[in-house]
Amino acid sequence: MRKLVSTITGREYPFERLEEFADNGEALEVVMAGIEQARPRPGQHLWERFAEFLPFKAMDPAVSLGEGNTSLVDAGGRLKAFTGIDRLLLKNETQNPTWSFKDRGSLACVFMAQEMGERVTATISTGNMGHSIAAYGARAGLKPLVFVPEFAPREKLMAMTIHGATVIRVHAPDYAAMKKAVLGLAREFNLRIVSGNGPIRAEGYKLTAFELYEQMRGELPDYIAVPTSACGHVRGLFKGCRELLAAGLIGRLPRMIVVQAANNSPIVSAIKQGAQHVIPFANFHTVAEAITTGNPMGGDEIIAKAYQHGWLAEDAVEEEIMEAQRVLAQAGWFVEPATATSLSAVRKLRAAGRIAPAESVVLMLTGAGLKDPDALKHQPSKIVESRLDRVRQDVEHALS
Amino acid sequence: MRKLVSTITGREYPFERLEEFADNGEALEVVMAGIEQARPRPGQHLWERFAEFLPFKAMDPAVSLGEGNTSLVDAGGRLKAFTGIDRLLLKNETQNPTWSFKDRGSLACVFMAQEMGERVTATISTGNMGHSIAAYGARAGLKPLVFVPEFAPREKLMAMTIHGATVIRVHAPDYAAMKKAVLGLAREFNLRIVSGNGPIRAEGYKLTAFELYEQMRGELPDYIAVPTSACGHVRGLFKGCRELLAAGLIGRLPRMIVVQAANNSPIVSAIKQGAQHVIPFANFHTVAEAITTGNPMGGDEIIAKAYQHGWLAEDAVEEEIMEAQRVLAQAGWFVEPATATSLSAVRKLRAAGRIAPAESVVLMLTGAGLKDPDALKHQPSKIVESRLDRVRQDVEHALS
Repeated sequence: MRKLVSTITGREYPFERLEEFADNGEALEVVMAGIEQARPRPGQHLWERFAEFLPFKAMDPAVSLGEGNTSLVDAGGRLKAFTGIDRLLLKNETQNPTWSFKDRGSLACVFMAQEMGERVTATISTGNMGHSIAAYGARAGLKPLVFVPEFAPREKLMAMTIHGATVIRVHAPDYAAMKKAVLGLAREFNLRIVSGNGPIRAEGYKLTAFELYEQMRGELPDYIAVPTSACGHVRGLFKGCRELLAAGLIGRLPRMIVVQAANNSPIVSAIKQGAQHVIPFANFHTVAEAITTGNPMGGDEIIAKAYQHGWLAEDAVEEEIMEAQRVLAQAGWFVEPATATSLSAVRKLRAAGRIAPAESVVLMLTGAGLKDPDALKHQPSKIVESRLDRVRQDVEHALS
Repeated sequence: MRKLVSTITGREYPFERLEEFADNGEALEVVMAGIEQARPRPGQHLWERFAEFLPFKAMDPAVSLGEGNTSLVDAGGRLKAFTGIDRLLLKNETQNPTWSFKDRGSLACVFMAQEMGERVTATISTGNMGHSIAAYGARAGLKPLVFVPEFAPREKLMAMTIHGATVIRVHAPDYAAMKKAVLGLAREFNLRIVSGNGPIRAEGYKLTAFELYEQMRGELPDYIAVPTSACGHVRGLFKGCRELLAAGLIGRLPRMIVVQAANNSPIVSAIKQGAQHVIPFANFHTVAEAITTGNPMGGDEIIAKAYQHGWLAEDAVEEEIMEAQRVLAQAGWFVEPATATSLSAVRKLRAAGRIAPAESVVLMLTGAGLKDPDALKHQPSKIVESRLDRVRQDVEHALS
């Protein structure tokens, strides 16, 4: 038995219609009967081992691109010293097939699209989401359709079109007007526009919590820090933890750390102010391009859960984001700026005493640094221009 | 007991000096006594499970970035139809920490650098190798030093410098002059310049064969197709297979398929012509930028092994490479052009009857498509420029 219910009111919605949100904008989530009795079982794929926790009637391995099974690594001395957190781990979601966490949600979407007999998979995106949907659509034999706003850079769109996606760039007065037009057309053409915070994507991100449970041998960390934009990732991860608890497989819930760029912090600002609703941001600029949802649909759920479960929330200003990207790279991991926000956030939370010295933290490395080469323009570079008659002294200097 | 021996003459070299090549340019390889008795054992990391096959005295998990454990996936109907090969699998090495196969070799290099007490790790590279060495150097607390030729694009170097690597761009009349100057300085400063085909890197690539052995439950494929430049990857993979055979863990060796761009095919041309030595290429251009070694040191070993073990060799012309990149992307995998060469090669080998209908083939996906966004300029794009007053008909058209 699977139901679709509002995360705020608990009101039920017909599962077959698979709405992305309630009419009033509340986030919907899948509720499965009997989750208390669900158990992991042997299997090759993560989704096979946790099949009893998942709402899919069929899960065809032929639509997987080999997502998941990403590394969980001790962060090392440099990052521990930077943050002051001794039990710091990195979960490297850049090791997914399109090099971001989005692939886990896309797998869930194609499982469900197959069950529903859909022929098209569509989304609005300028980055990781569009790329992932394009790749998984291609793999599953669905037609990928990506709507992008006017300002979307051509290079990012090329990574979608090579997968065979049709990219429609809508020139419009602003992003909101574009989105409204596309959602209107979607109803008309009976086309599901997959959101980053839809209930089915959350089922995919849930699997990351199950993978952490396996990798940590049942001991989930005290905190999981998640760069947050559409909100699907943080809520999917937490839903997985809640279900592990409901099934009696863990004894307590980890707390989430919601992280945003200070320049666009609709959720973090709300939590810091004790507000109940998303505080919309518009006309902002941040180097953290992958987390630029200014008014996330369904964000009120995250705010409510933060109060209910004692989550933390922190932001990072532009200089902190760039510094964190450098520090992560100098420890070995090249991530996009959006990902780096969480390193800065946990450092500040530790300094403020919100994270205790003995507590463990997992940082979700959400997207690869290669996703946003432009961001490197803001970083200092150490390229030494040398010549044959000078290279000897340049080497000597480099080694000194 | 570990020795360093020439792959051509079997002559021994002092292990402690860890030369990258014999004085006459022959490739060197590590030979371990008692490999026949080596056995996999339980362990968290691949290198722990296969420790008895490895020459390292210590393997510190703190220098790992979480490389390996990459997916091995059934290629799906589209790629099987394109190649005519029904048992086609993809080993996705773009899921490594710096998104190329190089990371496995870099792990081996830092293990050995630690044992040798080295403080610097240096290489000559314009791409994947430099990036990987920079990241692993950063992780291990070694100083990464990357020499690059004059023509190296600045964007690729930035991905190295953010890891804290010192990049020295040597303006010189040609690549050979640059390389000669750097290797001369290396001797003077007692600096090991890590080559893509050094004996220690091959020990890292060996681990990929062991991982395939685990993933395929002891049944290695008939063929493994490898885009080839410096030659380290193909020989490391095969060395792993030879050692599994020597230890009695497999019953027969897979055959390698050496793949190069037709515009730069120093190994493939030699094998096709029945020559014994590398046929140097110079002043060529190919879109497959990651495989542009025109005169690979130690390449004669690969040519000799091809005859000895019945390997196949095939090239791809520029149009075939671009086509293969598109076909792979439309099946779900976005790879750099160098990687795509092997799809084209196995298609041609199957069409020529060199690969039989019932034989199984693993393609090594060596590097991520994001590594070379410029290559997309040569691909057709389907970006539809739309407006609010026209988006309805553009959607209708896209869905038709």
